[in-house]
Amino acid sequence: MLAEIITIGDEILIGQIVDTNSVFISKELNKIGVKVFQITSVQDEREHILEALANAQKHADLVLVTGGLGPTKDDITKETFLEYFNDTLVEDAAVLQNIKTIFKQVIEREPLPSNLSQALVPSKAIILHNPFGTAPGMWMEKDDTVFVSMPGVPYEMKRLFSNEVIPRILKKFNRPYIYHKTLLTYGKGESEIQEKIKDWEAALPVEIKLAYLPSLGRVRLRLSSTGPNEQVLKAAVDIQMNTVQELLGDIVVGYEDEASIQERIGQILQERKQTLSLAESCTGGAIAQEITSKAGASAYFRGSIVPYATELKSDVLGIDPELVKKYSVVSLPVAEAMATHANTLFKTDYAVATTGIAGPTKGDGRDDIGTVCIGIAGPNGVSSYKFNFGNARERVIGKATNKVFELLLKEILKN
Amino acid sequence: MLAEIITIGDEILIGQIVDTNSVFISKELNKIGVKVFQITSVQDEREHILEALANAQKHADLVLVTGGLGPTKDDITKETFLEYFNDTLVEDAAVLQNIKTIFKQVIEREPLPSNLSQALVPSKAIILHNPFGTAPGMWMEKDDTVFVSMPGVPYEMKRLFSNEVIPRILKKFNRPYIYHKTLLTYGKGESEIQEKIKDWEAALPVEIKLAYLPSLGRVRLRLSSTGPNEQVLKAAVDIQMNTVQELLGDIVVGYEDEASIQERIGQILQERKQTLSLAESCTGGAIAQEITSKAGASAYFRGSIVPYATELKSDVLGIDPELVKKYSVVSLPVAEAMATHANTLFKTDYAVATTGIAGPTKGDGRDDIGTVCIGIAGPNGVSSYKFNFGNARERVIGKATNKVFELLLKEILKN
Repeated sequence: MLAEIITIGDEILIGQIVDTNSVFISKELNKIGVKVFQITSVQDEREHILEALANAQKHADLVLVTGGLGPTKDDITKETFLEYFNDTLVEDAAVLQNIKTIFKQVIEREPLPSNLSQALVPSKAIILHNPFGTAPGMWMEKDDTVFVSMPGVPYEMKRLFSNEVIPRILKKFNRPYIYHKTLLTYGKGESEIQEKIKDWEAALPVEIKLAYLPSLGRVRLRLSSTGPNEQVLKAAVDIQMNTVQELLGDIVVGYEDEASIQERIGQILQERKQTLSLAESCTGGAIAQEITSKAGASAYFRGSIVPYATELKSDVLGIDPELVKKYSVVSLPVAEAMATHANTLFKTDYAVATTGIAGPTKGDGRDDIGTVCIGIAGPNGVSSYKFNFGNARERVIGKATNKVFELLLKEILKN
Repeated sequence: MLAEIITIGDEILIGQIVDTNSVFISKELNKIGVKVFQITSVQDEREHILEALANAQKHADLVLVTGGLGPTKDDITKETFLEYFNDTLVEDAAVLQNIKTIFKQVIEREPLPSNLSQALVPSKAIILHNPFGTAPGMWMEKDDTVFVSMPGVPYEMKRLFSNEVIPRILKKFNRPYIYHKTLLTYGKGESEIQEKIKDWEAALPVEIKLAYLPSLGRVRLRLSSTGPNEQVLKAAVDIQMNTVQELLGDIVVGYEDEASIQERIGQILQERKQTLSLAESCTGGAIAQEITSKAGASAYFRGSIVPYATELKSDVLGIDPELVKKYSVVSLPVAEAMATHANTLFKTDYAVATTGIAGPTKGDGRDDIGTVCIGIAGPNGVSSYKFNFGNARERVIGKATNKVFELLLKEILKN
């Protein structure tokens, strides 16, 4: 069984927004054994949407379409669906009621005619209830292919997809199992890893596919397999994963599908009733943001300070200005002092500090752009590390953030 | 002139990564007047890549392909290009030298045979130098369509595209001008905006296209036009923008193409030699991360504190615990006190504070999930605002972050 995703909107094609909807849909389909054959982003143009629908129908049993359902004139997905399915509009009483309820309770004004017209839907469509917005989802069939149209607003689409679309897919289609397992490694490049595991890779059963996913200081290795029996599938992949994990030794930090490295840190600290704080200079809040984006962070994460201006490292964190003068603000002693003082300030068990030069200019540091010092203070004392993460600002911040999680997990696992 | 983008990699189709490459390429092409007709993401599979190349050639003068160029066996883009162009491999001396240099200077080990094989390139290709990685770019032509293959690693692709591909596109193709202008509005929904401007919208010249882009508490209005004369184009769009801006009044905060709302705040503060600090509780570093992701933040941004645990609001920020007890941690008086104390702690002119319940559980607040209080302290004193941003964690954090920038800009513009 194959699916295709079509995302509609000029804003995608001029680079004005990042298409996160197709990422979410792909992930969810994958979990229930539906393979995504292709993702296509097209403009808000009648001929182009019609062509994309027809092309998708060639390969796919299921076509998921997002976007173009708003009340404004630039949104033409509904009209184009009418044409593709040779259908006419009818008013849906439940959708009309939902629109009126949302306007009364959330928007707190009278709906306009353009809002009420969202209750007009294709007569052949099964209507999918959208309690979070005024545009409903639509499920339509043509020659054995199912087409689903959903709003493009991510939080509306996500709920509609999970609550209304997934259950209908499970009922309608027979699906094989798809099983992926992804190993996280830090510290070696992909070709070095391949060299280490080449004999194992050459002997992999044909039905198991290996992918290397390198990014900012880490490489993920993904094994994938598809089949009718979930137990058999998992057992076969797990055996291979165990072997490759042994071959790779201490560069492995865990499996991605079980928990991300941030989640593993959170789980361990929570079990031990230990806490974490941060002093983020060059990463400027990126580590705190990543930690607090996940629910449950408050169980172990107490807080962070971003002493972005150099003198704040002394004024707020309490670091001796002589230390900064002697070693430079980007230095191992300053990183260690920042971590130690963060533990004191926030009354935590572990603290991580970053100080570096993200670029494009040098700021108050003496080192090259890309230099980052990371300090970690914990029950075993304090340690620090110096890196150069290159000369692109986003890459420096990204690599430093990933490196912090890697070093912190290793430090925590020492106990 | 039309372009298509093809991104290759199973990791995109199973939702493991977000395809940011096509966003960057679309944006850059748009700047030089090249319209992107379609973006297609396909698997690392020979037949599928061949089909995508052939389909793209039907519409496009220029096809930009990313991904599948790594040294490992799962990367098959080069082999598939060989087949599509009926070509053979030759060794490129400059690429070989680049690989050896990168291994010597950056990776600090001897290259493996798989690394050296990246110097084998299609004989018909113009090779595009990639100083940041071992996979070169390739520029190939077939029946008047140009195909460009680039590595999928974002920072390598971006530099290769900007330095090697863009200049070649400018030389090879005649392009019209494309002009977009995007107005940022906060506080009204898209249908209300449409109602307000419907007469103006109906009278828009056919060559000017209007799009509504709603997201998390704000709506962007984009006008687009294409033509041979840049001055005429800009003048026509600008006249319409002035009109619509007058019709919309005070919900307009500025133009997106000139500067984002964060950049405008930064520019104004820098001109006035004023500074900003943050006390982020429920947003957990998201605002600091957004500010510091842009170069130049250190000119006005002094720092942030994330007092994630309730008692830290007193211990580190110095807020009276009785205030928290009396009004609850999520309250207007606490938000105001956090902002005022942040200004004192960081010695800044403006400070913004957030305290709220991002969910999915209630934490220490007494209010509903989604409640967020924002405090702003500045030269005109302190003010505070209370919102409910719904029950989805990412949406609450996202809406609160956007709202902070909106309120802060309004506050700054009062002076």
